[in-house]
Amino acid sequence: MKAHELGIEIGVFKKGKRDSIADVKGVKVGHVTLIKGKGKLIPGKGPVRTGVTAILPHEGNIYKEKVLAGAFVMNGYSKPVGLIQLWELGVIETPIILTNTLSIGTAIDGLLDYVLRENDDIGVKTGSVNPLVLECNDSYLNDIRGRHVKREHVVEAIKNASEDFEEGAVGAGTGMSAFEFKGGIGSASRVVEIEGRRYTVGALVLSNFGRREDLTIAGVPVGIELKDWPGKGGEGKGSIIMVVATDAPLTSRQLNRLAKRATVGLARTGGYAYNGSGDIAVAFSTANKIKHYGKETLEVKALPDSVLSPLFKATAEAVEEAIVNSLLNARTMDGRDNHVRYELPKDKLIEIMRKYGRI
Amino acid sequence: MKAHELGIEIGVFKKGKRDSIADVKGVKVGHVTLIKGKGKLIPGKGPVRTGVTAILPHEGNIYKEKVLAGAFVMNGYSKPVGLIQLWELGVIETPIILTNTLSIGTAIDGLLDYVLRENDDIGVKTGSVNPLVLECNDSYLNDIRGRHVKREHVVEAIKNASEDFEEGAVGAGTGMSAFEFKGGIGSASRVVEIEGRRYTVGALVLSNFGRREDLTIAGVPVGIELKDWPGKGGEGKGSIIMVVATDAPLTSRQLNRLAKRATVGLARTGGYAYNGSGDIAVAFSTANKIKHYGKETLEVKALPDSVLSPLFKATAEAVEEAIVNSLLNARTMDGRDNHVRYELPKDKLIEIMRKYGRI
Amino acid sequence: MKAHELGIEIGVFKKGKRDSIADVKGVKVGHVTLIKGKGKLIPGKGPVRTGVTAILPHEGNIYKEKVLAGAFVMNGYSKPVGLIQLWELGVIETPIILTNTLSIGTAIDGLLDYVLRENDDIGVKTGSVNPLVLECNDSYLNDIRGRHVKREHVVEAIKNASEDFEEGAVGAGTGMSAFEFKGGIGSASRVVEIEGRRYTVGALVLSNFGRREDLTIAGVPVGIELKDWPGKGGEGKGSIIMVVATDAPLTSRQLNRLAKRATVGLARTGGYAYNGSGDIAVAFSTANKIKHYGKETLEVKALPDSVLSPLFKATAEAVEEAIVNSLLNARTMDGRDNHVRYELPKDKLIEIMRKYGRI
Amino acid sequence: MKAHELGIEIGVFKKGKRDSIADVKGVKVGHVTLIKGKGKLIPGKGPVRTGVTAILPHEGNIYKEKVLAGAFVMNGYSKPVGLIQLWELGVIETPIILTNTLSIGTAIDGLLDYVLRENDDIGVKTGSVNPLVLECNDSYLNDIRGRHVKREHVVEAIKNASEDFEEGAVGAGTGMSAFEFKGGIGSASRVVEIEGRRYTVGALVLSNFGRREDLTIAGVPVGIELKDWPGKGGEGKGSIIMVVATDAPLTSRQLNRLAKRATVGLARTGGYAYNGSGDIAVAFSTANKIKHYGKETLEVKALPDSVLSPLFKATAEAVEEAIVNSLLNARTMDGRDNHVRYELPKDKLIEIMRKYGRI
Repeated sequence: MKAHELGIEIGVFKKGKRDSIADVKGVKVGHVTLIKGKGKLIPGKGPVRTGVTAILPHEGNIYKEKVLAGAFVMNGYSKPVGLIQLWELGVIETPIILTNTLSIGTAIDGLLDYVLRENDDIGVKTGSVNPLVLECNDSYLNDIRGRHVKREHVVEAIKNASEDFEEGAVGAGTGMSAFEFKGGIGSASRVVEIEGRRYTVGALVLSNFGRREDLTIAGVPVGIELKDWPGKGGEGKGSIIMVVATDAPLTSRQLNRLAKRATVGLARTGGYAYNGSGDIAVAFSTANKIKHYGKETLEVKALPDSVLSPLFKATAEAVEEAIVNSLLNARTMDGRDNHVRYELPKDKLIEIMRKYGRI
Repeated sequence: MKAHELGIEIGVFKKGKRDSIADVKGVKVGHVTLIKGKGKLIPGKGPVRTGVTAILPHEGNIYKEKVLAGAFVMNGYSKPVGLIQLWELGVIETPIILTNTLSIGTAIDGLLDYVLRENDDIGVKTGSVNPLVLECNDSYLNDIRGRHVKREHVVEAIKNASEDFEEGAVGAGTGMSAFEFKGGIGSASRVVEIEGRRYTVGALVLSNFGRREDLTIAGVPVGIELKDWPGKGGEGKGSIIMVVATDAPLTSRQLNRLAKRATVGLARTGGYAYNGSGDIAVAFSTANKIKHYGKETLEVKALPDSVLSPLFKATAEAVEEAIVNSLLNARTMDGRDNHVRYELPKDKLIEIMRKYGRI
Repeated sequence: MKAHELGIEIGVFKKGKRDSIADVKGVKVGHVTLIKGKGKLIPGKGPVRTGVTAILPHEGNIYKEKVLAGAFVMNGYSKPVGLIQLWELGVIETPIILTNTLSIGTAIDGLLDYVLRENDDIGVKTGSVNPLVLECNDSYLNDIRGRHVKREHVVEAIKNASEDFEEGAVGAGTGMSAFEFKGGIGSASRVVEIEGRRYTVGALVLSNFGRREDLTIAGVPVGIELKDWPGKGGEGKGSIIMVVATDAPLTSRQLNRLAKRATVGLARTGGYAYNGSGDIAVAFSTANKIKHYGKETLEVKALPDSVLSPLFKATAEAVEEAIVNSLLNARTMDGRDNHVRYELPKDKLIEIMRKYGRI
Repeated sequence: MKAHELGIEIGVFKKGKRDSIADVKGVKVGHVTLIKGKGKLIPGKGPVRTGVTAILPHEGNIYKEKVLAGAFVMNGYSKPVGLIQLWELGVIETPIILTNTLSIGTAIDGLLDYVLRENDDIGVKTGSVNPLVLECNDSYLNDIRGRHVKREHVVEAIKNASEDFEEGAVGAGTGMSAFEFKGGIGSASRVVEIEGRRYTVGALVLSNFGRREDLTIAGVPVGIELKDWPGKGGEGKGSIIMVVATDAPLTSRQLNRLAKRATVGLARTGGYAYNGSGDIAVAFSTANKIKHYGKETLEVKALPDSVLSPLFKATAEAVEEAIVNSLLNARTMDGRDNHVRYELPKDKLIEIMRKYGRI
């Protein structure tokens, strides 16, 4: 379900066909969802409410044909892996893996299992590889200390990747909370026209942030209206991962700029990057492929900066809608110690949007 | 005039007494407004629609007793002076000067006139001084090539500093445009309670950014509603300077974090840091004074990061309201070549806010 | 063996008692060294030439009493884990783990095993933890694809930590190469006096960088003199990790500054951060302990920046000597595919130093 | 005079024809030198020992055809103007102006005089311009409070630009000190071959840093040997500006990397970026020209990162030699209050280099 299916319009640009990150040609997303057990937390035993999400920038061997990329840290209470090299070299060279905070080690290992298998030259004839792993903390519902994500789940998430993928409480989003509702995976896209050419910007978020009263949808203070809706609680230990893809030809410097605009969408949903939130944005473009063994002078296609504003605005819109979509698609889920994250009530939401003249 | 006087409430925190940056004890603001001539642009001659605004972090000698500070660049299409040293040493050591883009040289010189006079040791017995000068481009109304700001205007703006100061089309805000309306200087404040103590966060902005259709007030798409209101035009060459002050004891690292949250307020008014916009935030705390000649080990008072979230949220709110206040206080102004920036129509605004259930 | 035992003096400051990072009171270092098999590389089987090194900032529970810290990336062709949060919050909250590039996932998991065991509140009553793991690529000698480091090795390295520790081809340094000689772990320290008080700066490096001809010791072009010494080869895929500890009271901003000066020592040994080198510096101070659950306003002890220059210079000296010490202590080691890294020949070195008037 | 004319070889790469930044085709340098008065400092009156140096990245209109650029701040006790926009957009669009710290305002104004005259569209039909002005503090010799640099001096320095230019105590270097000797302007170049093509890296420095005992030339501790040479004094308030030019096709990200390597050369001369030193490096490439009004998709020529190491090493060498050349060319100069900066004694230097086996 997408926001516009409820009549909620976010921003002014047209959406892509799927209204998802997969509207950027070649981009695919796969999940592994882990749900097991119920009731009282027995650290190491469960209950399990977690998973893995993989984003593939293109269909080929990403290590051999890297994509240009940028990133931005709005708040660094976070444990991302891979950003330092991404900034230095301006590329992504593996699938992007999302999971829970205490599973980043295993996620790296699983990602390496996959990448080393695909590339038998790594560590033998060529250098190493820069795994890109991002996380949020799902411990409100999940036995995070149990580290239930295994290496094979990462490989499986990559293999599951498809242009059509679920949103909500799936994959890395399984145990996540947003605005004290059930959060998780959300996606959206926008299409812009620049100098006569059409470009697509797609966003995928892993939402896990926000106090109830901060929730804002299309400018409407939904969270304040729903402040007495059940299910509040949790110490506000959140985070959000925002992945932005585009087919517009951009350099890594420009993709750093694009990543920064993801935070505009975040702010408009009520996010303000509170202390405990790890708010990370990564952006990549599929327009240039950088060959691993290339020695020739490159001709990097890049739009001039003076025409980028529509892409910036589209990024803000796509991320804003992706966050809303993450809420709209996540079903109520119980977790450890009788913690329950209720889904955002659609009927009530429509009522509120009407009250504020937005539907 | 403040937003709440029209019944528009932004955010949830209490405002300070003046609802301005001067609610932070010791902070003062002074303007020099330059308006001369009419009609066709004769570069170097006029018309003149520009000025200077000075913000004083405290009432003493700022060079001898520096304040801890941070800064954040949301978009660097901007010519700020002083940020490199601010980041390295974590302090502000002069009044903060705002003016137009082509007057930063003169503003530095005027600021040096003032600071050198106050400190006859600079360049003789001690090192140099780091002038802090920030700018926006007022060329839609102003003969910016004329560089009509003179050194003495800077000194005068500093001398004019007071806890009570005007907002709108004054000082550096004289010729600025926001959302294709008249913009300029705006201010607001918030009061938060942390571990039983009250702290104030104040913001002052120089608003000069945004296309009409982006304007959002308290979540309401005011700009889309007013898209046919007269006065549109200008190529969207904007910028915004956001200055945040607080009496909460924060280190420079924490003030960098605070400065970043200014962009949350910016995003909520419709800003998305388009390519041509120089979006700069500076934050300082008055709680620690760093002595210029001090050699002793310092005991820097600082809140633990775990309690900072209310300050972050208050910063977002204060900046958001300050931007709105800059629009509410700026009167219609004509400028070069029959360019006119109309003030935001209050009656119409109230009507729109009602339509969207916000008043 | 330390450089000065050969009569080689680096810099002008006094050394600490051990001439090691453990001269900073409370700092301890532990290794696990993994050596197994010989001959032809059979990926996944061996030969094994790798290990783990752990640096403990103090003797207590580091998660519960964090130390202020900074970091600097001279070249980001590297996969460090933990820097983003280190910069945001200005602290280190785990032991620092060094290992090989493809073992960072396992190292995180092993470090989490240790930290979660020590802190049963993590992920249950409090948030998560930020593991700090740094790496170099030892694939010239080691079957790096085999990922022979196991989680228990990390815990063991932490448990092995002592004020007295070996240097050279041990721990994470087991398989590392520097200047086409055998490199690895090296350490050194300096003592400075500031305003009547004595402070210690200690450095520990994991050296794995440099082409033969770049090697410079105390200004002498040793590498050019030894250009025909056997054992050259390897594609110059290097890196260096530099860890700096001090008991001087410094803020995280100041520790970022200190970390930057580590690169001065690096440059003086011949390092210039070539493309494939991941050159990372981390610095911490033991003078302030930040309580995990503290809510009270802190009084952070900090030297004024104006007196820091001796600490900067001492950092450069300690890192320069630590790199030299890593070479002096590493014994010749064979590895995969008949690759051999010879130790720097001491007799020859003394001869060269004499030729250039340095002994 | 260049280092190699004394038999001092720095590094291994070949030098360009002039051994200066002007070996990069199109790059020119111009000076205005201001020397007036003698004796006791009368602030505002003299004596005057200062000036301006201008570096032109190419011979055309730089605003209309910008060059890609990067920058790095080794120590930010400095007042550079223009870096924020340089990083954001990755270009330089004006001549680069060097002068004294308190003259940056006037230098901006003079640079604007020049640029506005060349471009009557700025501030009328197009946006503003980003002046690039860098500085060091020459107050040991110069009446810096007098701000004797005038706007016309900046224009004159630009007009004086030539492929052949003086080094030493000229232009911005007139009043500068390095290692308690006379410092100032120095330049050098290196030629490298990459994948069968030759590229030139040129460096120009404004040296004004270092205590006597830190001076190191080609690895030799010259400063310690000359510690009793007359003329010591000054509180070590230094700085260095390092400008690197190349004709190799590099993106702005890669030029940020190149700028960072300038600090390697700095470190090898004895610099360690002490607290009071503003150590700034700027790098640009002449290989791509970015049109101000261009709207078409660019094809940016760029070497792959994997082949950049020789350029990095050449940058380190060129900067190291440029610093030495600044010392070799600066003649003894007296200044305010009987301060005298002696030139580095050549005979003595040769003697020392022989003692250490370097000649």
